[in-house]
Amino acid sequence: MKFDKESNVLIIGLGVIGGSYAKALTEKGYKVDCITLERESIDYAKERGMIRYGTTEVEEELVKNADLVIFAIYPGAFVEWIKKYGHLFKKGSWITDVTGVKGSVVYKIEELMPEGVEFISAHPMAGREQSGVEFSDPSVFKGANYIVTPTEKSTPEAIALCKRLGEELGFARISELSPKEHDVMIGFLSQLTHCIAVTLMNCSTADGLEKYTGDSFRDLTRIAKINDKMWSELFISNKDALIYQMDTFIKEFSDFRWLIANENREEMREKMRASTERRKLFDKPKA
Amino acid sequence: MKFDKESNVLIIGLGVIGGSYAKALTEKGYKVDCITLERESIDYAKERGMIRYGTTEVEEELVKNADLVIFAIYPGAFVEWIKKYGHLFKKGSWITDVTGVKGSVVYKIEELMPEGVEFISAHPMAGREQSGVEFSDPSVFKGANYIVTPTEKSTPEAIALCKRLGEELGFARISELSPKEHDVMIGFLSQLTHCIAVTLMNCSTADGLEKYTGDSFRDLTRIAKINDKMWSELFISNKDALIYQMDTFIKEFSDFRWLIANENREEMREKMRASTERRKLFDKPKA
Repeated sequence: MKFDKESNVLIIGLGVIGGSYAKALTEKGYKVDCITLERESIDYAKERGMIRYGTTEVEEELVKNADLVIFAIYPGAFVEWIKKYGHLFKKGSWITDVTGVKGSVVYKIEELMPEGVEFISAHPMAGREQSGVEFSDPSVFKGANYIVTPTEKSTPEAIALCKRLGEELGFARISELSPKEHDVMIGFLSQLTHCIAVTLMNCSTADGLEKYTGDSFRDLTRIAKINDKMWSELFISNKDALIYQMDTFIKEFSDFRWLIANENREEMREKMRASTERRKLFDKPKA
Repeated sequence: MKFDKESNVLIIGLGVIGGSYAKALTEKGYKVDCITLERESIDYAKERGMIRYGTTEVEEELVKNADLVIFAIYPGAFVEWIKKYGHLFKKGSWITDVTGVKGSVVYKIEELMPEGVEFISAHPMAGREQSGVEFSDPSVFKGANYIVTPTEKSTPEAIALCKRLGEELGFARISELSPKEHDVMIGFLSQLTHCIAVTLMNCSTADGLEKYTGDSFRDLTRIAKINDKMWSELFISNKDALIYQMDTFIKEFSDFRWLIANENREEMREKMRASTERRKLFDKPKA
């Protein structure tokens, strides 16, 4: 397994994240090729020097020569791709991804790996509310978190290489979680927040509200601009963890509602002091 | 009533918003004095040339000479202040505020105005999650909204002056709402969002979550750093409108939960497309 400037890196799916990976790695001097659905994405990336070569076909030679293959496509499509073309991977190559759910994907993919090829999964905790390669921007990785999600079968070598990939991409904090721990955590930090943002945005259709809004509402709904195809798939793939988090939120929110309804100022203030204190932990580290 | 560079502007309460008003108006060439509780706030503002004069005492001459008095203190303290010192206001002067709730405040204050003095209320829809004059920064007004909330008694002259104040402060969009309309709107756009942020922050006390978070959770909890004294007062002052908005949110959130639990992908996507479309309205106008 290798990951150096001589390695052939192949990115599958040149969207906003795949594109950001391509740009970051090319800028660092890696050789980056890609396979993606739309000719326009390739043209865009080629014109800007983001990739060495791109194709809309799964060209066998390209896959066979790759030392590292990075999947940046939807979970369902990822599994289908591996079923169809996984046998082409070169012995000694390694495979990673950016998929937002792990439990329902990682073990399936691992099972499908040919002899001598290792899959090591990761989740870059950065993105943009827009989709498409034209919004790719590796600066979103600065100061951001990157999580490697090894299984019992993962080798220390693959874990180390995958962490190095995170460093090369510019992530600030790199850590490890099991696929299950990842899914519980992501149900809370990412999926619940998207459900809240979509809900808040849909609570009122009153005309002209934008004339009165402040930054609070803007911040809480930034991610209500959402890729509906991808996120509906992610929500369903992690349904149990997400529903648990939603129920926890409803319970805590109802408690707070009760305090307001009863004008229980002291307990309300206690909860606000707790949230103020805890929020300090989550400030973004300097890149 | 006047508001020009010769006017004596008096700010009551030199916190983050009062301080930002002081700085913005002084930079524009207005004469700005202030009365506030802490000597340190005055020293800070004086050293940076943000005010002409400041005192921790309610000096009668200062109040009597003011052409415009701007209140940037908590709602309850505001009403008490006016009861105690309102008789000092000069005939022909006008009074405004920055209070975050209107119905429970505006009519009381209006009642308390001496003959020949007009109170015209406004709400600057900008702030910071920190409090204190040292966090004041008028650049938060750039691109932001400013709402004047006149009553049936407000004169066109006072409304016009108050809007000009908003323009001078640098606000991008200036509009009018009745106090009641304001409170319904603010219950949704501002108070509900703060309740959600505090709740979300308090949903989990798991160790180390900050290593895994992305910007979604950071954005949704930025305002979980909250001034508990002020916001508990605002929530209670606007209890009915806020509880209504919280119930609306719980209903919409529960609907979305049901769609996920039932893997109803199509209706989930429909809601996400609606939120994506509607969120576009709320992008901040260029300053």
